[in-house]
Amino acid sequence: MDDGPEREILRATYRALCEHGYADLTLKEIAAESDRSKALIHYYYDGKRDLFDAFLELLYEEYTDRIDAATGDTATERFRSLLAVLLTDEGASSGRGFRTALLEVKAQAPYNDTIREHLVEFDAALFDRLETVVADGVESGEFDPSVDPARVAECLTATVQGAHARRVAIDGSTDELYETLIDYAERHLLADASGSLEVER
Amino acid sequence: MDDGPEREILRATYRALCEHGYADLTLKEIAAESDRSKALIHYYYDGKRDLFDAFLELLYEEYTDRIDAATGDTATERFRSLLAVLLTDEGASSGRGFRTALLEVKAQAPYNDTIREHLVEFDAALFDRLETVVADGVESGEFDPSVDPARVAECLTATVQGAHARRVAIDGSTDELYETLIDYAERHLLADASGSLEVER
Repeated sequence: MDDGPEREILRATYRALCEHGYADLTLKEIAAESDRSKALIHYYYDGKRDLFDAFLELLYEEYTDRIDAATGDTATERFRSLLAVLLTDEGASSGRGFRTALLEVKAQAPYNDTIREHLVEFDAALFDRLETVVADGVESGEFDPSVDPARVAECLTATVQGAHARRVAIDGSTDELYETLIDYAERHLLADASGSLEVER
Repeated sequence: MDDGPEREILRATYRALCEHGYADLTLKEIAAESDRSKALIHYYYDGKRDLFDAFLELLYEEYTDRIDAATGDTATERFRSLLAVLLTDEGASSGRGFRTALLEVKAQAPYNDTIREHLVEFDAALFDRLETVVADGVESGEFDPSVDPARVAECLTATVQGAHARRVAIDGSTDELYETLIDYAERHLLADASGSLEVER
């Protein structure tokens, strides 16, 4: 990753956002977190909106890199790995300040087209990865053939986002939810799940 | 519902919140939405934090009344009715302005103990109703006896909150998610679900 002035300004934006939140984020705060002057930031970016557009673009790249790092030889392993990236602390790339700021940014979406368009991209990327891994599992015969990958992905996309919102709002852990979703997968996605449950009863 | 000055001030708070959001909410904005003066509001409430505490308490009462209005003769019907209240437009008590403000309020929780305590109550009320209806279904034999009510409730609490966050952030509909969760229930909660799936295959 090169550390030219633009990248360095975006890193300073991250630090300023964690510290001050979105509402109080100004070019002045960003300059204070950076080696650059407010004038130099203005040279690269037209204003807060323009800079934040570039910032969300960088964040999107990092987010997709992170979820694409979920690996495994089988769809079942990739599904577990993806949920671990999304829900466990080991998978988290960011602290509480950043998660809080991100929820604040979401609440800005109705008033800000740029933010909304980026959030639609983030949402679509998450949905896409979840749908792909479930579809892979159905195709390989690992998952129940009656599972609808789009429906599972729709539901899990909401669940993951709710887990992140709850983590900020009530400081709730997502670890237990991770266990619950893995349990859900083992019971209801795996091709032999209903069979093994029948045996248990 | 009586319309004494306190109740009238809290109604004005709702209108001001929908219009201005939480960050820009001041006693002046609330007075402007009300028949009361800023001085009178100060007579009843020490400041924005105190007033907002009372506002969230009223909101909690209305929220629990709304989710407790989910009815049905069987646990399966009550489960469907509860999801309809939580996820469909018919069940919604509030418009987009309010939903947006509520997400903004959630992002304030890490900085504001009063808000966080109220959000913990909201979350617990939702979890409790979901857990109760699933436990009822297991007890009555309608739901699969291997279903863990607390785990299902934990997962659905996150899913419902994620659906609301997505609705604000990307203007996503929750209707499809409602269908998906009803479908999930029919496949995986109902006692005869695995049996009927076996027949389909």
